[in-house]
Amino acid sequence: MHSLEEKIGYSFKSPSLLKNALQHSSYANEKKGRHHKPGEPIGSNERLEFLGDAVLSVVTADYIYRHFPMMPEGNLTKLRATVVCEQALHRQALKMGLAEHLLLGKGEEAGGGRERPSILADAVEAVIGAIYLDGGMEPARKFILSFTEENIREAVRHSVSNDYKTILQEIVQKNKQETLSYRTVSSTGPDHDKQFAVELLLNSNVFARGEGHSKKAAEQAAAREALRLMGEEV
Amino acid sequence: MHSLEEKIGYSFKSPSLLKNALQHSSYANEKKGRHHKPGEPIGSNERLEFLGDAVLSVVTADYIYRHFPMMPEGNLTKLRATVVCEQALHRQALKMGLAEHLLLGKGEEAGGGRERPSILADAVEAVIGAIYLDGGMEPARKFILSFTEENIREAVRHSVSNDYKTILQEIVQKNKQETLSYRTVSSTGPDHDKQFAVELLLNSNVFARGEGHSKKAAEQAAAREALRLMGEEV
Repeated sequence: MHSLEEKIGYSFKSPSLLKNALQHSSYANEKKGRHHKPGEPIGSNERLEFLGDAVLSVVTADYIYRHFPMMPEGNLTKLRATVVCEQALHRQALKMGLAEHLLLGKGEEAGGGRERPSILADAVEAVIGAIYLDGGMEPARKFILSFTEENIREAVRHSVSNDYKTILQEIVQKNKQETLSYRTVSSTGPDHDKQFAVELLLNSNVFARGEGHSKKAAEQAAAREALRLMGEEV
Repeated sequence: MHSLEEKIGYSFKSPSLLKNALQHSSYANEKKGRHHKPGEPIGSNERLEFLGDAVLSVVTADYIYRHFPMMPEGNLTKLRATVVCEQALHRQALKMGLAEHLLLGKGEEAGGGRERPSILADAVEAVIGAIYLDGGMEPARKFILSFTEENIREAVRHSVSNDYKTILQEIVQKNKQETLSYRTVSSTGPDHDKQFAVELLLNSNVFARGEGHSKKAAEQAAAREALRLMGEEV
């Protein structure tokens, strides 16, 4: 249990909460059949998973809302879905070695439940719920960001359609004095083959240039160039 | 704006956040066409709605998790869905007189958008997001519970399949010294027409009795009787 707490990076005041998070319903049902007393809380981790799911949702929503001030709602939703999906939570369960701590019923164990991605992903959410109940929102946030922050960065770089403007905006806004804008400086060529050139301005100074067949493409090219100039891998 | 803040029960440090929460995308799009500067945040309330939705979700999850310690996960999920649904948020929008404060584009206005339940419900979520950004989780929680607490109580009484045991448990657990349990005292009759009798114990004392064709039904009957004895409307 201590080794798991170390991997989570949180030490429980009530270790029974962590234990509860590791109890799959198959285990709780077996136990209930044997020793369940009326009035005793139901021992499966499903209720904690319900709570942890909501905590995961608000922590990631808060993070991406603040870090991507220019990102439209549709992309925020897609981005969050990517980082809180079963696959991402399963990956985190593997990193934490959660499987070896899970408490399963005999049937589920025999059926390979200990390796099932959905069971492991749900247990990560239950662990989040347990941290939240034990220590409140801040330790839960810390645990969640310990594995989602990097996933969010990755997802923005790759999935959100190579949106260099968004990545650049995220970097620039860390310094509140800096402002970023784009200016179209020329549009040449015939209608079916227009070429746009834009300048990217940092604090009113031209920092990078880009060209493309639309203003948007030219701005993306300029943003990509700016990221290169800043030494960011793109 | 002040009259709206009064109805929300929260006074904004940054009133521009509240204004942003009231800007429907149709309004923001019109405005953007006219005066939008590159680098300026997108003015529609959709991003705040994204954030507010997650805040609403965690606040209601936290509330029902703590208030219904015996409720299985499936019922927690159903219960929350009832109280955060569009209909419930729309009702709250009407109570707050939110419609008159909404900022809509001309087309949406002409099409009756100001009365559309989805637009009003979304604006309530955006207001939640704005309160959360302006003052943090606690004022957001206070606003959310100001209208969901009663709905949760109602939903438990009516929708969750007349679950008297859950209602009773909620009442009893307010007093941490009290414990509630059930004891089957007899099972009579032939297999196809069994009749069970149970006793409901409060702190080891028999407080109510119930009968039914299953243990569960008999316990529900006993819980209902206990609620009657406590003067609760059931």
